[in-house]
Amino acid sequence: MSVAEDLETPLVLRSDADGIACLTLNRPKAYNALSLGLMAALQAELDAIASDRAVKVVILEGTGKGFCAGHDLREMRARTDAAFHEQVFAACSKLMMSITELPQPVIAKVHGIATAAGCQIVATADLAVAADDTRFGTPGVNIGLFCSTPMVAVSRAIPRKQVMEMLLTGEMIDADTALRHGLINRAVPEAELDAAVSEMAGKIASKSPLVLKTGKAAFYRQLEMPLAEAYAYTSKVMVENMQARDAAEGIDAFIEKRSPKWTGE
Amino acid sequence: MSVAEDLETPLVLRSDADGIACLTLNRPKAYNALSLGLMAALQAELDAIASDRAVKVVILEGTGKGFCAGHDLREMRARTDAAFHEQVFAACSKLMMSITELPQPVIAKVHGIATAAGCQIVATADLAVAADDTRFGTPGVNIGLFCSTPMVAVSRAIPRKQVMEMLLTGEMIDADTALRHGLINRAVPEAELDAAVSEMAGKIASKSPLVLKTGKAAFYRQLEMPLAEAYAYTSKVMVENMQARDAAEGIDAFIEKRSPKWTGE
Amino acid sequence: MSVAEDLETPLVLRSDADGIACLTLNRPKAYNALSLGLMAALQAELDAIASDRAVKVVILEGTGKGFCAGHDLREMRARTDAAFHEQVFAACSKLMMSITELPQPVIAKVHGIATAAGCQIVATADLAVAADDTRFGTPGVNIGLFCSTPMVAVSRAIPRKQVMEMLLTGEMIDADTALRHGLINRAVPEAELDAAVSEMAGKIASKSPLVLKTGKAAFYRQLEMPLAEAYAYTSKVMVENMQARDAAEGIDAFIEKRSPKWTGE
Repeated sequence: MSVAEDLETPLVLRSDADGIACLTLNRPKAYNALSLGLMAALQAELDAIASDRAVKVVILEGTGKGFCAGHDLREMRARTDAAFHEQVFAACSKLMMSITELPQPVIAKVHGIATAAGCQIVATADLAVAADDTRFGTPGVNIGLFCSTPMVAVSRAIPRKQVMEMLLTGEMIDADTALRHGLINRAVPEAELDAAVSEMAGKIASKSPLVLKTGKAAFYRQLEMPLAEAYAYTSKVMVENMQARDAAEGIDAFIEKRSPKWTGE
Repeated sequence: MSVAEDLETPLVLRSDADGIACLTLNRPKAYNALSLGLMAALQAELDAIASDRAVKVVILEGTGKGFCAGHDLREMRARTDAAFHEQVFAACSKLMMSITELPQPVIAKVHGIATAAGCQIVATADLAVAADDTRFGTPGVNIGLFCSTPMVAVSRAIPRKQVMEMLLTGEMIDADTALRHGLINRAVPEAELDAAVSEMAGKIASKSPLVLKTGKAAFYRQLEMPLAEAYAYTSKVMVENMQARDAAEGIDAFIEKRSPKWTGE
Repeated sequence: MSVAEDLETPLVLRSDADGIACLTLNRPKAYNALSLGLMAALQAELDAIASDRAVKVVILEGTGKGFCAGHDLREMRARTDAAFHEQVFAACSKLMMSITELPQPVIAKVHGIATAAGCQIVATADLAVAADDTRFGTPGVNIGLFCSTPMVAVSRAIPRKQVMEMLLTGEMIDADTALRHGLINRAVPEAELDAAVSEMAGKIASKSPLVLKTGKAAFYRQLEMPLAEAYAYTSKVMVENMQARDAAEGIDAFIEKRSPKWTGE
């Protein structure tokens, strides 16, 4: 699960095109296990993207045979003090919160396996598209370490009994099952994965980035409110959104049957 | 999207039969867009029904080619002041809360399209039956106005990633997908829509209205509570329900293998 | 629905093998209706199991033609005072909370029918496997007694509109529908029910009981927290879990490609 990190190879790659930033987990021999180094590199990229107005959508993918196999177990066993483990889980939880709090929508592009914290990334991303032979799991129970942080994300994405089965049996589910449960948005043949993700990312990148940012933030915030409070809050969000230039332009373009020109304001 | 309202035509029609009130959104040329006038008319009908003991079930439907296309965009752009938009969204959110708080169960009878606040009505109704060629969506992002209030209802009805896809891409989903996600209860050929909704409404109208009212109110209230609190609360509801004449009658009728006669007390 | 209880026959049977305790509701002529006597017997068994380190998994099943038909209606009508009904629902809600709070995972093994509080047990159990001809329902509305306590569990297991349909129409759903909604984990031919449940129970019994206990408790607790709080809490749970001997053993065994030996510490 763990492989010495080659200090000359970046642990996370970034490539940008057409307003879409693609972040690639790059520890292929370790199934992109989330070492502290890899988590720090990913955190740095997300932090940079958060204030990068040129980026409208983020894709998260992994090199090699699988998307991500979770934490780096060798690294976690190399030190046995609680302080070190606190550091690992704090870094991981911060990373997940950063995906949720990122202004831009995040699409997980998943292949091979997505297990433990790797499955958590899939559940945390706003959207997920997977190769149809991907397997997903929260198998921590098999190694004496219950997937307690991954379940935070997974239990908010799929029904209770279905996540409990994954957690208690440690068994993998296939992409069809993941799709049926709601863990992913689409399963496609691996040969079509690039195209399917690009199409989805391109579609979203064509929207107003201001509106995407407003909507994504409001989405997660209202989910945690009682109904009446959620309406009071989102009604305000709608009123503010109506004051934006992009809303005026978008509605006018719609009425005039032409394409809108977003200014992001 | 907007059509001048004919002041002589009621914006909402109501017809009652066998304890079932059918409310029909009646701006067919505007896809029943929710102008302030239409929302006020619908609110007035709901307010009247709330205290009308003759009504046991409410059906919400729309005339013309579609169920409801959401807010009236021309009206919303006709005035640009925040105060006006506050009025619009306050009216809409109050309407949705009124559907949830109505003592009687509400069934959305959906055809053609249900988009933005139209999709919100579907998500808000207690039950929904749709023609199998209906399309549903929260496409606000396409016109620079994120569906922030609609998502309150939709995100409480279907899984997180599935509503995120609707919100971020602005794409429509078909009735099969809506059924699979849980947004509707049934999809039937349009020719069978009347019959399917009538059957469902008739079945519910045959129950004790007191018990329906008790149960519906408790349902939404307990959903927002932690588990232990929800049990403490609903246990009280059950005890009170057991004191009702209709519970005594219903249980006795069941034991005696006869039909119950409800008094609504 | 009610049959005089034979005082010489235990209302709940228990048999243990290989770390798996099987609790059998044993009022077959009454479809295992939850009389006060049966609830007390089941509560006593759960209380005993909670501190029984030999038990790693619990199976809940019923004798006779069905799993459980809910409360004992004759008993509930035999006394009409609110104090008695308070006792009944307090006992039932305590029972459900005890299933959720039990350190060991609980699998409902369901056949025939699971209605009202019987359906609630299915929804409350951590996992559920059913014979494929089982029917599930919350039909209280048919007898003037809305399934207000059952809906607490069912509405946390399946989507909102789907539980509302069960509650308002009082109609039964079949095992396929229950599976699609997420109420159960598997539906199998009745002839294969024993084997399917044994396989699932055996798989879970092979894990570290300490880790199962930690994970199950954390699962239900984090579900009721906002996201950031859930991560703060489960990160602590992970750090503590890493300090356990079973985590060290499990991870080392995984790295060394051998089977782990759990000590439960």
